[in-house]
Amino acid sequence: MALNVDRDTLSDLARGAAFLGTGGGGDPYIGYLVAREAIADYGAPPLIDVEELRDDAMVMSIAGFGAPTVQVEKLICGDEVELALTKLEHYLGVKADAIIPAEIGGSNSMIPIMLAARRGLPVVDADGMGRAFPELQMNSFSANGIRATPLTVTDEHMDFAVVEAKSDKKAEDMTRALAICMGLRVFVGCFHMSGRQAKEAAVRGTLTAAYNIGRAIREGRAANNAVDSILACLKTTSHYRNGKILFDGKIVDLVRETARGFSVGSCHLADLADSATTCVVTFQNENLQAVVNGKIVAMVPDLICIVDRETGEPIPTQALKYGQRVKVIGMSAPDQLRTPQALALFGPQAFGIDQPFTPIEAL
Amino acid sequence: MALNVDRDTLSDLARGAAFLGTGGGGDPYIGYLVAREAIADYGAPPLIDVEELRDDAMVMSIAGFGAPTVQVEKLICGDEVELALTKLEHYLGVKADAIIPAEIGGSNSMIPIMLAARRGLPVVDADGMGRAFPELQMNSFSANGIRATPLTVTDEHMDFAVVEAKSDKKAEDMTRALAICMGLRVFVGCFHMSGRQAKEAAVRGTLTAAYNIGRAIREGRAANNAVDSILACLKTTSHYRNGKILFDGKIVDLVRETARGFSVGSCHLADLADSATTCVVTFQNENLQAVVNGKIVAMVPDLICIVDRETGEPIPTQALKYGQRVKVIGMSAPDQLRTPQALALFGPQAFGIDQPFTPIEAL
Repeated sequence: MALNVDRDTLSDLARGAAFLGTGGGGDPYIGYLVAREAIADYGAPPLIDVEELRDDAMVMSIAGFGAPTVQVEKLICGDEVELALTKLEHYLGVKADAIIPAEIGGSNSMIPIMLAARRGLPVVDADGMGRAFPELQMNSFSANGIRATPLTVTDEHMDFAVVEAKSDKKAEDMTRALAICMGLRVFVGCFHMSGRQAKEAAVRGTLTAAYNIGRAIREGRAANNAVDSILACLKTTSHYRNGKILFDGKIVDLVRETARGFSVGSCHLADLADSATTCVVTFQNENLQAVVNGKIVAMVPDLICIVDRETGEPIPTQALKYGQRVKVIGMSAPDQLRTPQALALFGPQAFGIDQPFTPIEAL
Repeated sequence: MALNVDRDTLSDLARGAAFLGTGGGGDPYIGYLVAREAIADYGAPPLIDVEELRDDAMVMSIAGFGAPTVQVEKLICGDEVELALTKLEHYLGVKADAIIPAEIGGSNSMIPIMLAARRGLPVVDADGMGRAFPELQMNSFSANGIRATPLTVTDEHMDFAVVEAKSDKKAEDMTRALAICMGLRVFVGCFHMSGRQAKEAAVRGTLTAAYNIGRAIREGRAANNAVDSILACLKTTSHYRNGKILFDGKIVDLVRETARGFSVGSCHLADLADSATTCVVTFQNENLQAVVNGKIVAMVPDLICIVDRETGEPIPTQALKYGQRVKVIGMSAPDQLRTPQALALFGPQAFGIDQPFTPIEAL
């Protein structure tokens, strides 16, 4: 049965999206609040399957862009988000028929819902990542030849820019430079595509998957087995079948800074009973790699999610704190993120990790 | 008699513009070469007085933007300059009727001539500074309420951006951020205005003034009195009447770096006969302040020009070298650069100099 995005389902959807955000994608609670308010003001937007799009439909993406550490201090109005879409429509001379999330992770699942509610447009139950990634060119749209540009960048002062570049990596560089000087919490309207292109390139059903994971956390929490409930749910998904607990322990050290326009650092964990058993999770907005006792146990684009060990609450990188007792869950990325074209854009080497990608199920 | 911009006058015009560039405005020789080539290929553009503009004419500005230290390593094609104008026209939905230089200084006097030749448009004998300044909002257009934005930014890869911001200072910040990531040698199409606005705000007759100064250098050089010839010429101009030699000596130390998207530093000079008599000229792309034996002798927006002490050749900040024997010439800025609104934008405080502006004739 198709999911209704409404006040009742939104909370589960936001929590599941935070889990799929693999540490990033923007603060999920803030995203939840703005989407809830938009639904109250404008009504819930219809959620449609990618197959429901006409081949010639005009689909556009919207996303928050910057560092999640900054987002929790600079809240979202909504007008600046709508401006990103309006300016993109104006620049292209066409209107959007539907909104597709650029990434399912964190608040970037909620912002398209908020915008679609404001504009009376449907949201496509799909995205360009099936998770979150820190850079513009890191998604299945780019991997399938769909261009991020022309893109619009807006801030809370309603200042904006339009960016066009020969490559999405250059567009990322230009947008990052703008974002840093615009306060590191901006919104981009980008990746306009036809319905046919969306069918070829999108990671499908990810809003529904996020809802199911969020519901599993809520229901498992009530039964005091939240993490088991997550793992059981992952097995039922088409994208994230290989899920497992990579580490169980507490945070004993945390290095985190806002640099180059990202939130970067590493989270150091130790086993609760045996402090010599350790885990290090490195991140650039999102978690990139988990190393247990010196051995890699999961690496990007596979998903690494740090959750509260009792409640299963996903903890994004900006909310990690010394002393938190957590479980680190790893799971396989959707198949379309593991193709050679995809790995060239967001495999380990794209993040400076000098290791070939090895799937989590082989580690 | 009105000046013809052609191969014969171009060399004098470029040298005079280098002098008025007060150390910046881009490398004059490179600008001269591209303007000369465009005139050879497309014919010389007509030079028109600002009074010849229809009140409803659409006038647009074009300028190189970045750090002059970089420009001497990254030459100009011409296509990227024309792209800045074409994209601005496209974004605004109007065509330019004439090109007005944003600044007369250095290569930024030549680039509008090159572009006007390519596009068969007239060049207005005026600019927005009567000199050169390092930042976008530092000109008489901004001081008269004409907005820099929407502006276009282009690079040699033909990548580009459109910037719109509530203030020209914010537009400067956004454009600087883009320029740094686009290689610090970009071109901006900006300050579109009506003919009526140009008449109100432009610093008039500055291409002709540059030509006259350049001719004075050439003729004075032939008579072995280049610097005297410059000073005599300045007295005949309407804008730069108070000219004098601030220092005569050699460069004994030079601090120069490319930082924050500018070429910044200081040039230290000593008297040829008495090394205890010293002068320090600080610069941010352009020369900002001259201090002789600890006493300020000239400050922005008044013009400070370092020239070869024998030939009168203007030496831009990127070409300053240890051991050069030079004269430092100071002269009064055009009256419209000394109004309170103008000084707020580009007086000493705008550059972090904690001194009120004092005119050179009072120092």
